[in-house]
Amino acid sequence: MNKPKIVVLGAGYAGMMTTKRLTQKLKPEEADIVLVNKHNYHYQTTWLHEVAAGTIDQNRSRIMISDVINRKRVNLVQDTVVEIKKGDKRVVLENGEIEYDYLVIGLGFEKATFGIPGMEENAFSIQSVDKSRIIREHMEYQFARYNNENADKDHLLTFIVGGGGFTGIEFIGELAERLPELCKRFDIDKNKVRIINIEAAPTILPGFNKELIDYAVHSLESRGVEFKVGTMIKECKEDGVIVGEGEEIKAGTIVWTGGVQANSIIGKSGFELTKGKVNVDSDLRAPGYHDVFILGDCAWVMDEESGRPYPPTAQIAMQEADTCANNITALLRGSKLERFRFDNKGTVASLGGKHAMGTVFDGKKLFGVSAKAMKNVIDNRYLFLLGGPKLVLRKGKFRPF
Amino acid sequence: MNKPKIVVLGAGYAGMMTTKRLTQKLKPEEADIVLVNKHNYHYQTTWLHEVAAGTIDQNRSRIMISDVINRKRVNLVQDTVVEIKKGDKRVVLENGEIEYDYLVIGLGFEKATFGIPGMEENAFSIQSVDKSRIIREHMEYQFARYNNENADKDHLLTFIVGGGGFTGIEFIGELAERLPELCKRFDIDKNKVRIINIEAAPTILPGFNKELIDYAVHSLESRGVEFKVGTMIKECKEDGVIVGEGEEIKAGTIVWTGGVQANSIIGKSGFELTKGKVNVDSDLRAPGYHDVFILGDCAWVMDEESGRPYPPTAQIAMQEADTCANNITALLRGSKLERFRFDNKGTVASLGGKHAMGTVFDGKKLFGVSAKAMKNVIDNRYLFLLGGPKLVLRKGKFRPF
Repeated sequence: MNKPKIVVLGAGYAGMMTTKRLTQKLKPEEADIVLVNKHNYHYQTTWLHEVAAGTIDQNRSRIMISDVINRKRVNLVQDTVVEIKKGDKRVVLENGEIEYDYLVIGLGFEKATFGIPGMEENAFSIQSVDKSRIIREHMEYQFARYNNENADKDHLLTFIVGGGGFTGIEFIGELAERLPELCKRFDIDKNKVRIINIEAAPTILPGFNKELIDYAVHSLESRGVEFKVGTMIKECKEDGVIVGEGEEIKAGTIVWTGGVQANSIIGKSGFELTKGKVNVDSDLRAPGYHDVFILGDCAWVMDEESGRPYPPTAQIAMQEADTCANNITALLRGSKLERFRFDNKGTVASLGGKHAMGTVFDGKKLFGVSAKAMKNVIDNRYLFLLGGPKLVLRKGKFRPF
Repeated sequence: MNKPKIVVLGAGYAGMMTTKRLTQKLKPEEADIVLVNKHNYHYQTTWLHEVAAGTIDQNRSRIMISDVINRKRVNLVQDTVVEIKKGDKRVVLENGEIEYDYLVIGLGFEKATFGIPGMEENAFSIQSVDKSRIIREHMEYQFARYNNENADKDHLLTFIVGGGGFTGIEFIGELAERLPELCKRFDIDKNKVRIINIEAAPTILPGFNKELIDYAVHSLESRGVEFKVGTMIKECKEDGVIVGEGEEIKAGTIVWTGGVQANSIIGKSGFELTKGKVNVDSDLRAPGYHDVFILGDCAWVMDEESGRPYPPTAQIAMQEADTCANNITALLRGSKLERFRFDNKGTVASLGGKHAMGTVFDGKKLFGVSAKAMKNVIDNRYLFLLGGPKLVLRKGKFRPF
């Protein structure tokens, strides 16, 4: 007798936690579980800005999947997804294909550049271990070049970060910590360094409380960061950007954090996209497909209170994983599916070093070292859910604060 | 009453040891001593291939001048030499000028590319801290790029080292150790890496004993290095070289170690050059100038036994410094100058990791770990001469072997 086969695509926050929960909820005889991922490791997307800035080693941000997933229960397939043939209930991989009874799509995001000329080719993005560590190496290379050039070289030390959302601001905070260190290493006057954040909206961190935004701006400006809000990037060139009415700002490194969209496999596979992602039903299934769940950065989940989709975060992806695992279990057992409800535990943005700010639980605002401490608690909590205390000890954050 | 003024240009092996010896030999009332250097640090040129490969930190290779030179006795001027006006007995600096009664020129070498098209612009050289650390950063950047490229990317992992002399071979030895480590760091199959040494002469390390050369070739080949001896580089391009009858070898990093010449300031200042350097008299003075000494990589010193100049090494530069300091003392005191005699203590080439080979003292050949141990003894001896046991403890090499 064939057991139903659950296939999870992508070992990000959503895919990992769904897989983990399924092994906890289901008995071995109830279903086969397959996890497909490009690499043999999972990475913490929310730590990648630190990898990109070089403030943590890349290996801190990644975890071998086989270390945290029970391999007796889960078949790990290391391959790259090419297309989902939902009519045939199968997934085409680069090196084969795989059939499913239930599919969980957690394939994450891609850079969305909104058609800004040159942005795709010339800007880096904080998107995977590979794409993040190249930012670090590129930046260090610009510093190493500096004292070997004779003239027209100050722009090598200029960093432009396009987008003042969560990732952009957290990345800038890390840069503000790292660059003085690099200046010392490469015998460069630290006043030569410029970090410029360009945001089209009238404020950075849209959606955050004004008091928190002011704190972040002040904290970063006091460490030399320049903000250009309400400013559109018109074009991205190899060595700079054009903003506003044609003003050119030269830079050695340009990073785009201004927009994300679902992995392009989703659109290619025929799912209907709204603003680059799939509007999923309240039970997290793709509309019209009773056997396909879409989670994390590939999906918009409607907040019925506000009438707008929830902003996509690691926190929500992990909660979606719980609902998804419950609903697959319900489908297998013929019971009723649950609606996803987001339990907001707050959001803390790191601003580099000992600096952070955010809200927790009941909406209480936190600043500075207490926010930073909470940020570490949040980071460690995920590790605990995923791999228990052993993983916290191995990969957790215990910086003094 | 004006004291005579001794000006030493360059804080390399020759300049540092001359200055040190002068402070030991002369009484404060006998002369003023000025040391002019571009940076406030001295660097160990013979360790730069390790900085370039990334096997030691750059700061291991440099020493603050003020830590080892008695500042009460020596006036340290941090500036860049522009020209020597020997007729007027003065030196033009970027930010001023300085007069001298006795001049010691120890301004080191520059890359000599023998007119090979593109070599000047496209190849790195192991020549200073700045020029060495950029090699490391460039190489790490190529590795970081690799997994972000789709096709035509294998050449990013190819290293071409032009020149199979001492520096080229020692550098290749370090690369052979470092690259497998970088492969691990960047998730790259180490069989994709190529290290190619190209040497125009029929053998690498010309001048060395055949048994030692064979040992070096075998040791490096067993770690994957490819040798192309008897092969001329016809042209150096941004992404490769043309050799022989037009064969193109693509590479991500090209380093030229095939030739050196005296700092170009020497020629610009009107000293007569032979094969890029000054043939100095046996008392190390520039022919025709009783008050100018030229040492180290700016000079050829004739070996009267062989009738050919001594090969320039750190060892000979330090011995020249002794003779130079003695001869300046003799000039001040009106006594007889001495002729330089080279006391060959042997030469050991490091081949990376625990590998090394060379000859010591009485011509005895050394291989492997015992050669490596001797190499460390040699490196530490210089530190001892310069800064005593404290400097050996701080900067010395005590790798396990």
